[in-house]
Amino acid sequence: MSARSDRLTRQLAFLREIDALKTVLRQSMIVDGSRRENTAEHSWHLAMMVDVLAEHALEPVDRARVVRLLLVHDIVEIDAGDTFLYDEAATADKAEREQAAAARIFGLLPPDQAAELRALWEEFEARQTPEAVFARAVDRLQPIMLNMATEGHTWRSNGVQRSQVERMNAPLREGCPPLWTVVSGWLDDAVARGWLGPA
Amino acid sequence: MSARSDRLTRQLAFLREIDALKTVLRQSMIVDGSRRENTAEHSWHLAMMVDVLAEHALEPVDRARVVRLLLVHDIVEIDAGDTFLYDEAATADKAEREQAAAARIFGLLPPDQAAELRALWEEFEARQTPEAVFARAVDRLQPIMLNMATEGHTWRSNGVQRSQVERMNAPLREGCPPLWTVVSGWLDDAVARGWLGPA
Repeated sequence: MSARSDRLTRQLAFLREIDALKTVLRQSMIVDGSRRENTAEHSWHLAMMVDVLAEHALEPVDRARVVRLLLVHDIVEIDAGDTFLYDEAATADKAEREQAAAARIFGLLPPDQAAELRALWEEFEARQTPEAVFARAVDRLQPIMLNMATEGHTWRSNGVQRSQVERMNAPLREGCPPLWTVVSGWLDDAVARGWLGPA
Repeated sequence: MSARSDRLTRQLAFLREIDALKTVLRQSMIVDGSRRENTAEHSWHLAMMVDVLAEHALEPVDRARVVRLLLVHDIVEIDAGDTFLYDEAATADKAEREQAAAARIFGLLPPDQAAELRALWEEFEARQTPEAVFARAVDRLQPIMLNMATEGHTWRSNGVQRSQVERMNAPLREGCPPLWTVVSGWLDDAVARGWLGPA
């Protein structure tokens, strides 16, 4: 087998494997309330959010790089599963499970690309670059948008209080103040309607 | 309302509206065979394919631009629906339905962004730039990959013949010869296994 066809074989094996992200379910319902969202379609939605909202980032960002971070950032959930933001116990061994997942899944690729995609995932996780800060902010905004569209579905199901939303979404408040201003108004509305606890 | 908050309101309305792409079903089954694929997760999968396969494009491409083309290219299906590649009758009024959809959906955005995203969609449709040629090739490769993973599900369901696959996938054969070489081997295998008609 030529080097090129071996390379292509590995690339295609990876691309087939990550189809499984379509079967990882998140807590959020999609906007029409018909079913839970999966992580693959969530990743597309985040990429579109960045495409449209990049002008509001706290620091100027390389939009294409933020999109890459978000396309890749949840692939480890194929092995490690989705951890619900407000389930603080389940986050205990999350890092270890995700490291093993990254090694296996990105390791399907040719070594140069395995290293490149893993570095993107680690950049997202480390939250240091302006691109990672903005990516994380958008990753927080999207479930709040879905909650507002579904009468606070995951908030009501889990008895979530406003103070928890404020605390857990600091990456949004700090990473993108103009978006947080809008979200604050949404949260006022959600508490008034009984979709979110007032405490 | 300030100009900035009016702009943000329009952007968020668009981003909520496009959530509906998660409810547009395609003919393909996902790899595990459990259900049909939706267009939002399909778009994520294509973006990842470009990220990994861009080196095989016939002409050098701006990878970030190909990703944008693919993130946006199917949004019109929210109104216009998905048209199955091998259903040649249904393609008759497809262009008209999609133009109306583009006007409504991209029109939710501030005018500068509406024009920009619509231009990306039109670039994809026109198939002239190296980026659009490669985007279209990847858009053809992905359903073939899903068919190979699901014993030719959509081919068998629709009595598709090998010659039809060859003809309808000219954008892949011409737009990305190294990928077509791999796909030709897959098609040999699919015919031998009875997943695809031999004619």
